Amino acid sequence: MGVIGAGAIGLLLASAYEQEGADVMVFTRRPAQACRLNKEGIRVDGLLSYTAEVKANTTNEAIPMSFDLLIVAVKSYDVATALQSFFQKNMAVRQWLFIQNGMSHLDIISSLQGDIYVAGVEYGVKKSTDTCVEVTGLGRIRVAPFRLFTTESFVETSFLQIERACHYKEMLEDKLIVNVCINPLTALLGVKNGALLTEPSYKQAMRTIFREAISVLNRDADWLMLWRRVVSVCQKTSDNTSSMRADYEVGRRLETEAIMGYLLKEADRKKKAAPCIAFLSHLLVNRNDH
Amino acid sequence: MGVIGAGAIGLLLASAYEQEGADVMVFTRRPAQACRLNKEGIRVDGLLSYTAEVKANTTNEAIPMSFDLLIVAVKSYDVATALQSFFQKNMAVRQWLFIQNGMSHLDIISSLQGDIYVAGVEYGVKKSTDTCVEVTGLGRIRVAPFRLFTTESFVETSFLQIERACHYKEMLEDKLIVNVCINPLTALLGVKNGALLTEPSYKQAMRTIFREAISVLNRDADWLMLWRRVVSVCQKTSDNTSSMRADYEVGRRLETEAIMGYLLKEADRKKKAAPCIAFLSHLLVNRNDH
Repeated sequence: MGVIGAGAIGLLLASAYEQEGADVMVFTRRPAQACRLNKEGIRVDGLLSYTAEVKANTTNEAIPMSFDLLIVAVKSYDVATALQSFFQKNMAVRQWLFIQNGMSHLDIISSLQGDIYVAGVEYGVKKSTDTCVEVTGLGRIRVAPFRLFTTESFVETSFLQIERACHYKEMLEDKLIVNVCINPLTALLGVKNGALLTEPSYKQAMRTIFREAISVLNRDADWLMLWRRVVSVCQKTSDNTSSMRADYEVGRRLETEAIMGYLLKEADRKKKAAPCIAFLSHLLVNRNDH
Repeated sequence: MGVIGAGAIGLLLASAYEQEGADVMVFTRRPAQACRLNKEGIRVDGLLSYTAEVKANTTNEAIPMSFDLLIVAVKSYDVATALQSFFQKNMAVRQWLFIQNGMSHLDIISSLQGDIYVAGVEYGVKKSTDTCVEVTGLGRIRVAPFRLFTTESFVETSFLQIERACHYKEMLEDKLIVNVCINPLTALLGVKNGALLTEPSYKQAMRTIFREAISVLNRDADWLMLWRRVVSVCQKTSDNTSSMRADYEVGRRLETEAIMGYLLKEADRKKKAAPCIAFLSHLLVNRNDH
């Protein structure tokens, strides 16, 4: 099997499948990282602890191959580019697994051949070096088929807790709601996830974003379950720095398009108001050199 | 005459009246600052340049006196406390001048005896030490009578550009609109005033706040004049750090109540929506030790 993207999530999944006995090829953008992965393997520490041997290659040099399972674990805004480089190499893929925040990548993946799955990862993971992942929170990976007529069963690894979900849209929406409540605010405010609960004023701000999001997604009926989920994730990850905050602080590109952009397009389409989500997305521009 | 509050604005006005020939007493909270002011006077530099000799005292030790003009230049949330300490001393005041951001102090001052004026300062000023003020932008001070039956003419100084305005409410609203557009955003984003114009996304966020503010104040008819004012102040002060940003960064109390709180109360009273102003006020809590 193969994994495109060697960030924290990509490395965690690659190492878990390798521990299960799979022959794993990791595709990364930087040759230096591929080189180190070939030499050192993937070191997992924190709440899980093991080392996995993997093969690694850069996306550009990817040679024609066929995969039982190809996991795409790049940022949502890189999905299109990652897929293009693979189409050019004529790779055969039986099962795809897409792990991205937000829902804006769904348009892109709908034209693919093969069985497609989408997933939401609820583990807390942090890349400490190019070959090392720290697991800071145990959770689950929810996997749902992207098309109803998917017949084959998904290639699993018992090394991570993988749960099957029936409805990909609802599953991704659940995760989107959690993300839009926690990520942008922690990034903008420069606080840890837990501060959104301990500071009552921040909690109110988070509640405002939550209300707009569930209204846009027509999920008002589930609001209590969803709000409890947001609070529970905030609590469990209270000492963590959200991925968007980490990206914001070092000036990396943000997943605003995948998270807030998707909600704003839906709001527009459904003629619903989401003023604070729009406002927040305007504020979340990398500061660069202002 | 007397000046309560020895921040940048208080010191600037005290020094200007002294240069005009007035006998000036500055009231400050900290004995150390009173002591230095008595010894060193007020040094003004930057675009204006002179030194003024003043007498200084702490608010607590203030001895009974009478004033032709008493300028109150403390933060809006300190007006009530400042007035209380003066009432206890039985001071006679012929004219009051209140210089505060926002409009929430108007309730408090309406019960005072004497002629009352309110002002909006459009000079750029920065306190560099306890006795030194830097003038970074020349503007004007707009002064309006708080009550219509004010008969005597206001004690002026030709040392600063003072303009008379007829309608205090409109005048304070004009300033409130500029403040609510610039101060909270620069504080939260940690940027200079000019960034709100150079970064298109921030400009959109500022426009959102602007629209809500003029709607709440029923000033929609004047929107073009008011928006030009906001942009012009942003341009003139592009290299400046707003007072709220400075307060936010060192963890001082913010004038959110006077600026956003007033607008939110008005919105509530008039059954108007101001979701982004409310959201912004929730985000603007001093981070302390999160």
